Amino acid sequence: MTRDFRSLFDPRSVAVVGASNTPGKWGYWLGSGALLGADRRSVYLVNRKGGEVLGREAYSSLAELPEPPELVVIAVPAGAFEESVDEAIGAGAKALVVISAGLGEGGPEGRAREEAAVARIREAGALLVGPNCLGIFDAGTNLHLSSNSVPSGPIGLISQSGNLALEVGMLSGDAGLGFSRFVSLGNQADVEVAELIDAFAEHEETRVISLYCEDFRDGREFARAAHRAVEGGKPVLLLAGGGTAASARAARSHTGALVSDLVAIEAACAAAGIERVSTPKELVDVAVARLGAPPARGRRVGIAADGGGSTVIAADLAAAHGLDMPEVSDRTAAAIAELLPETAATTNPVDLAGGGEYDVFNFARVVEQLLRADELDIVFLTGYFGGYATYSGEHAAQEVEAARAMAGYARGVDKPLVVQTMYWRSEAADALREALIPLYRDLEGALSAISALVRAGAARPGGVPGLPEVAAPPVERTGYWEARELLSAAGVEFAEARRAVTGDEAISLAGQLGYPVVLKALGQLHKSDAGGVAVGLADASALEEQLSKMATLEAPEYSVERTAPVEEGVELIVGTRRDPRFGPVTLVGMGGLYTEVVSDVAVALAPVEDDEAARLIRSLRAAPLLEGVRGRPPLDVQAAARATAALSRVAAEHPEIAELEINPLLVLPDGALGLDARIGLAGSRDAA
Amino acid sequence: MTRDFRSLFDPRSVAVVGASNTPGKWGYWLGSGALLGADRRSVYLVNRKGGEVLGREAYSSLAELPEPPELVVIAVPAGAFEESVDEAIGAGAKALVVISAGLGEGGPEGRAREEAAVARIREAGALLVGPNCLGIFDAGTNLHLSSNSVPSGPIGLISQSGNLALEVGMLSGDAGLGFSRFVSLGNQADVEVAELIDAFAEHEETRVISLYCEDFRDGREFARAAHRAVEGGKPVLLLAGGGTAASARAARSHTGALVSDLVAIEAACAAAGIERVSTPKELVDVAVARLGAPPARGRRVGIAADGGGSTVIAADLAAAHGLDMPEVSDRTAAAIAELLPETAATTNPVDLAGGGEYDVFNFARVVEQLLRADELDIVFLTGYFGGYATYSGEHAAQEVEAARAMAGYARGVDKPLVVQTMYWRSEAADALREALIPLYRDLEGALSAISALVRAGAARPGGVPGLPEVAAPPVERTGYWEARELLSAAGVEFAEARRAVTGDEAISLAGQLGYPVVLKALGQLHKSDAGGVAVGLADASALEEQLSKMATLEAPEYSVERTAPVEEGVELIVGTRRDPRFGPVTLVGMGGLYTEVVSDVAVALAPVEDDEAARLIRSLRAAPLLEGVRGRPPLDVQAAARATAALSRVAAEHPEIAELEINPLLVLPDGALGLDARIGLAGSRDAA
Repeated sequence: MTRDFRSLFDPRSVAVVGASNTPGKWGYWLGSGALLGADRRSVYLVNRKGGEVLGREAYSSLAELPEPPELVVIAVPAGAFEESVDEAIGAGAKALVVISAGLGEGGPEGRAREEAAVARIREAGALLVGPNCLGIFDAGTNLHLSSNSVPSGPIGLISQSGNLALEVGMLSGDAGLGFSRFVSLGNQADVEVAELIDAFAEHEETRVISLYCEDFRDGREFARAAHRAVEGGKPVLLLAGGGTAASARAARSHTGALVSDLVAIEAACAAAGIERVSTPKELVDVAVARLGAPPARGRRVGIAADGGGSTVIAADLAAAHGLDMPEVSDRTAAAIAELLPETAATTNPVDLAGGGEYDVFNFARVVEQLLRADELDIVFLTGYFGGYATYSGEHAAQEVEAARAMAGYARGVDKPLVVQTMYWRSEAADALREALIPLYRDLEGALSAISALVRAGAARPGGVPGLPEVAAPPVERTGYWEARELLSAAGVEFAEARRAVTGDEAISLAGQLGYPVVLKALGQLHKSDAGGVAVGLADASALEEQLSKMATLEAPEYSVERTAPVEEGVELIVGTRRDPRFGPVTLVGMGGLYTEVVSDVAVALAPVEDDEAARLIRSLRAAPLLEGVRGRPPLDVQAAARATAALSRVAAEHPEIAELEINPLLVLPDGALGLDARIGLAGSRDAA
Repeated sequence: MTRDFRSLFDPRSVAVVGASNTPGKWGYWLGSGALLGADRRSVYLVNRKGGEVLGREAYSSLAELPEPPELVVIAVPAGAFEESVDEAIGAGAKALVVISAGLGEGGPEGRAREEAAVARIREAGALLVGPNCLGIFDAGTNLHLSSNSVPSGPIGLISQSGNLALEVGMLSGDAGLGFSRFVSLGNQADVEVAELIDAFAEHEETRVISLYCEDFRDGREFARAAHRAVEGGKPVLLLAGGGTAASARAARSHTGALVSDLVAIEAACAAAGIERVSTPKELVDVAVARLGAPPARGRRVGIAADGGGSTVIAADLAAAHGLDMPEVSDRTAAAIAELLPETAATTNPVDLAGGGEYDVFNFARVVEQLLRADELDIVFLTGYFGGYATYSGEHAAQEVEAARAMAGYARGVDKPLVVQTMYWRSEAADALREALIPLYRDLEGALSAISALVRAGAARPGGVPGLPEVAAPPVERTGYWEARELLSAAGVEFAEARRAVTGDEAISLAGQLGYPVVLKALGQLHKSDAGGVAVGLADASALEEQLSKMATLEAPEYSVERTAPVEEGVELIVGTRRDPRFGPVTLVGMGGLYTEVVSDVAVALAPVEDDEAARLIRSLRAAPLLEGVRGRPPLDVQAAARATAALSRVAAEHPEIAELEINPLLVLPDGALGLDARIGLAGSRDAA
């Protein structure tokens, strides 16, 4: 549903309902803000009591305006919401921005009121931002309809939090940037985040799209819109919240949102090429980087500073971020050595050892050598540069010249140059900022930037997979055998197993399968830590002993299974769970004891193809174990990937399945074998 | 060696050798700086050419001064180093600060020159800071002998990097803080970091001691001095560098330092109670916290903000830092609910949901409730507070009142309150800063602070263990049997093993031990990934097969060993290695495949006692595996601790041992069994 957002971002007329003379009130902020655009559009202030507001004659209702107001901003108490909305539609409004809180976020009754109003608004061919929002801003059209003024610049922000938007605005301002557009999402009763991403992607002045979101609404549409923007050349940065128990508590209370698991958000980001950040500062730091520098072709960083301590700390921090710092080639080291004192370090990191103090332009020369080195993908200058201006005017001029030169070298080789300087308010720093070189005051910011540029260079977002047709009949039972059958039918191979109700039956079936066998007590207690699984039962007496031990579990039935060669393989956990906003999401992780202490999981929107599944498996930290360590043969990752893809397809075809899992999936040198499986239906206890 | 540092920090007279009129020169900075203290002490400017320098008659040599200069600062080219030093001693100087570079950091020749000069200086009863240093500063005595001016405050800084010191100074200034004292270490030819820590610990105006260090000199003395300071109530913060290949390259080039492994530094920090930080910003952020707030009694954080987005992001970030955010008690939640609108979140995190805008003092009331909650150890207020001053003067006054009130509540319950506000330049922020409430602009800083306060509360530094007497005779051979014998004699139990030179011998010994056996080909290739170890050899023919496979390794001998019940236990790696500065350091980590993909290691200065060893083992991330998972019995951690302590003692008694390792040490339900051991001597290839 591509709608025209001109009425929202560049209306020919705007009316503020509830305009007020009292500083600190919404009606005051919105009214004064609207008047800032009075040279571009008609501005009407509406106050029930009429009289003079902000130096203008106020109208006592929208009905009195001399023309239909294209955009109406409403900041009235929730009780007057419907009345104001209907007045606005009646007056011919095409876009409404509703600040009023206490509607959908409060519960079902408020949501019903919102929905009814939205139906009338849509019928009138209009659109609604909010309610419970903090307004909108468009720098290019001089549209100021928010509580606080924000600086202008190339960053588009769509936010479900007013405070975070303010904070991002302030930090952007510090970095010499600001907003091209800002929309406060509020309850997204009508206009949702996905639509806005499309609108921002088409907005020329917006060069990077940043988001804070708690409720993604149609999550797949959100991800598709973001992917379109990314493909169109606009980085999308997401400050995501709600991934932990406490923050989910907070988010639910904040917007009454259907909070997505961080796993689902990560899967969507990977599919769409969205860069996820954790704080407002990181958002701005990464935006600065993506606005000014090309993605890095690899993770090899060259570091330079005049001062050994700066290079030492920067190198340690870069290593902690998983970056490489190879020594440069002899040729590059020699070229650098020629510029600098004997005591300089020239192999990477480069310590100018006074060579910058001696001749400030040496910074540019060293940076040039590092940028030109084929063995480096990104160059980081850190420390004192920018401070020589305090020495003399001559130093200051030379420093600016050096700054411009290094920016030019970076452009010339199309590699990222990132600079951190304690003198970030110097003329040299300004020169770098003007040249769009990502510039930071603190090492933390610079390393966020470098990491983001490396990730951006490595990202290959595959887009959002379509959901398959719903399979019939729906799955209605959640037992072990149902899970095995469903997955076997999709092509997953399982260890051979037989169903036994009595102990005698189990012993007889074990004889048929051949010892050693595995015994599982099925039902609620089907878990190894509850004593419901016994492996390596070597003969009938061992099996009998286990059966008598398990008798206390009062299992309705048993599974007797052929022993798999676990010592020859590695165990994975493979599953798909359904997120309320993003739909089915596939997870792959290492199994076994390892998983009890280390979180090592890769995720993707389901369904995944075989190749994508293999990529997920190989992205695990523990993936080297699959390649054959300590003289073991490499394992059959492709077979594991086929099983993963099959599982994700089945789960995606069955919307009634909340969770489907193979745990463990034993990856062997030749094939992959499911050793256990579980199914959870939406709304059932097993779905937990 | 406790020396008197008054001559350094509060000299009655100071002479600057090489004083200059040229801005941007060391002689200019030092001369102008020294003159700032002219009301407290005599200041003499010395320049070979005499004439007028900085508006004063300059002396052409130290010999001409009317009195002995108590402190002499020397900034001459390295060639004139000895001459200036001897002149200073001759003139009666008691303290020398030498800026001159190009001496000890350049190589053995320069080091010899330094040593010779230091011998003469000590003979004269004087002391030397530097050379290759950036000077010193003492706020209380108005002593400015450095290149840049730094703000005054309660932070003492000892630094081996001038640039990092400047950066720390600037960031401190932003936070309303500064330096009580600053010493640039330089090459530490005479005065070393440990002595300075003692001097700073006794310095009343210094309330937190911060360090940047590459070469710790006598590392154990360093750690003891830091521990004394910590025990005396002064937090010690260490910005440590040189822990990675690239940064070690940089540090060696920078100060010619003997760079310590991060492992050794971590062990020293744990023993001394030093807080390690990674960047100048983190150093200042943590200093702010430790200066103003008590350590937290636990890791349970209460979060409050007026704005759901702020609480969501803060809660996620806190979780990422390993903090807990429990729901508050019903009583606390009810008390908070009474203050706030219905839509507020009251269980933790607390979202005031407009309740702060409605009445700014509600921030203080909510913070009070959270501080009083027994279920919380630390309270974090984040977001907009500080911004209401923009509403009206009335709001501004109320906001300052609220700030003071919450600071008072925090003092009252002796719990840390940490505040982050985007309005960190507001009056309310100033009020909080005045009350020493740790205050941050960015969430990153606030979370660094909270984490540091939690760590400070949990730290139980045991002090620096003494080294045992050197054992005789020294270990001279590095073979497998030597390692086993040395450790067995110390009480470590090993799997039974027999030595075989020929295959026939091996088969005969295996028969005596009983199958299945383990076969190891000894010598250089004694490693499982080289095919030199075979386990689970079930009978003589399996053994023969292995022997013929291993024949290609051309091993000089074999070890035939009894099979240990590895499936009943968990494998650790236990070792002690010798750091050039900190001496023997003990490491404990998980063994097996796990260790190939996850770094999970705990460290301590050796020797460790049994209790400390047990604490190390239990601190591993994978420690839950030792407690018995999936129905397995708990393992004998005490036995593993005894083996670890025994190994650490042996290694400490033998300074000729560079590295001693049991890998793996199999921890069983009853006992711990060494399955392999290795010894490396200093200077030998095996030490690598």
